[in-house]
Amino acid sequence: MLNVEQLLSRFDPQTGEIAGVPAVERHLSDLRGCFADAAAYEQALAVDNPLVYTVASVALAGGAGDLNYAVGRLMPGCIGNEFYLTKGHFHAWRDAAEIYLGLSGDGLMLLEDEMTGESRVVPLRPHHVAYVPGHTAHRTVNVGPEPLIYIGVYPARAGHDYDAIARTNFRHLVVEHDGQPVLIPKQGKV
Amino acid sequence: MLNVEQLLSRFDPQTGEIAGVPAVERHLSDLRGCFADAAAYEQALAVDNPLVYTVASVALAGGAGDLNYAVGRLMPGCIGNEFYLTKGHFHAWRDAAEIYLGLSGDGLMLLEDEMTGESRVVPLRPHHVAYVPGHTAHRTVNVGPEPLIYIGVYPARAGHDYDAIARTNFRHLVVEHDGQPVLIPKQGKV
Repeated sequence: MLNVEQLLSRFDPQTGEIAGVPAVERHLSDLRGCFADAAAYEQALAVDNPLVYTVASVALAGGAGDLNYAVGRLMPGCIGNEFYLTKGHFHAWRDAAEIYLGLSGDGLMLLEDEMTGESRVVPLRPHHVAYVPGHTAHRTVNVGPEPLIYIGVYPARAGHDYDAIARTNFRHLVVEHDGQPVLIPKQGKV
Repeated sequence: MLNVEQLLSRFDPQTGEIAGVPAVERHLSDLRGCFADAAAYEQALAVDNPLVYTVASVALAGGAGDLNYAVGRLMPGCIGNEFYLTKGHFHAWRDAAEIYLGLSGDGLMLLEDEMTGESRVVPLRPHHVAYVPGHTAHRTVNVGPEPLIYIGVYPARAGHDYDAIARTNFRHLVVEHDGQPVLIPKQGKV
């Protein structure tokens, strides 16, 4: 059997860092095309290139029944009135679901059904578990003033498909309006 | 797509209850054969039949890539010097792994490899993620003074096999010795 150090991960609830696991860092410059307001994006990027999110993933095994998991940290902020977000992805194996649990902060999981285009936002915060069905693009959005920390568990064989989203982006976005997060169509207004 | 109420579960971090999901309750009388000291078990049961643990499970879908999850609450206590525990199980689909995250309290996950009989204990407490490989019996043990709350995520097709454990029980147990939890062989002494 694996030893205890392999079977166990400890993460820092403030930073989302998993001890001994390098995190992928995404800065604002990595997120071109993700925000609806391209002018606001370029304007922000001309001033600074902040860290927007990190993801630390643990993949201990890759069998059909195996699971991997990742702890993400998404910083607070906006581009224009659109809240900071992750790139979002489908699973390469479209049938693969994912279970997310908020650990700290206040976020939303933006879901978009690949077949119908239907969108949902599901709260992502402590004591809330969000289910991401298969065949569903999913993107994390930080709608609060603090970093959003969360964990996602997925089948080891899920894989990540970022390309489909990179081509068309999500059809809806989450914007701040009167101090509240609101889901609107990409071409829509609040 | 499912609606938000289906995609989201809220649980109470104090009780482990998931809103709208009935929890399975296991009282001491349900745990005959689980504790190594049968005399101490019968003696305790003659006095009282306390609730030992609850498990609330959410199974939204059952496809090959789907995931289910459960929130467990294991009360503090001992039978003889053996800490309160869950029955423990294999997955019926032996390849299926499980990812556990401690939410509150102080516990251990007791693992036993089906092929080799090797045992491990992995901390189960907040900010600690325990990986349960396939082909591994797993049992939760509360080694602290407070209820232990945790979440486990597993493939929807994992299934539960309690019978193998019910026949032979685990080969090791976790007992209190000088105020500390210690793993010992079933026939062993501290």
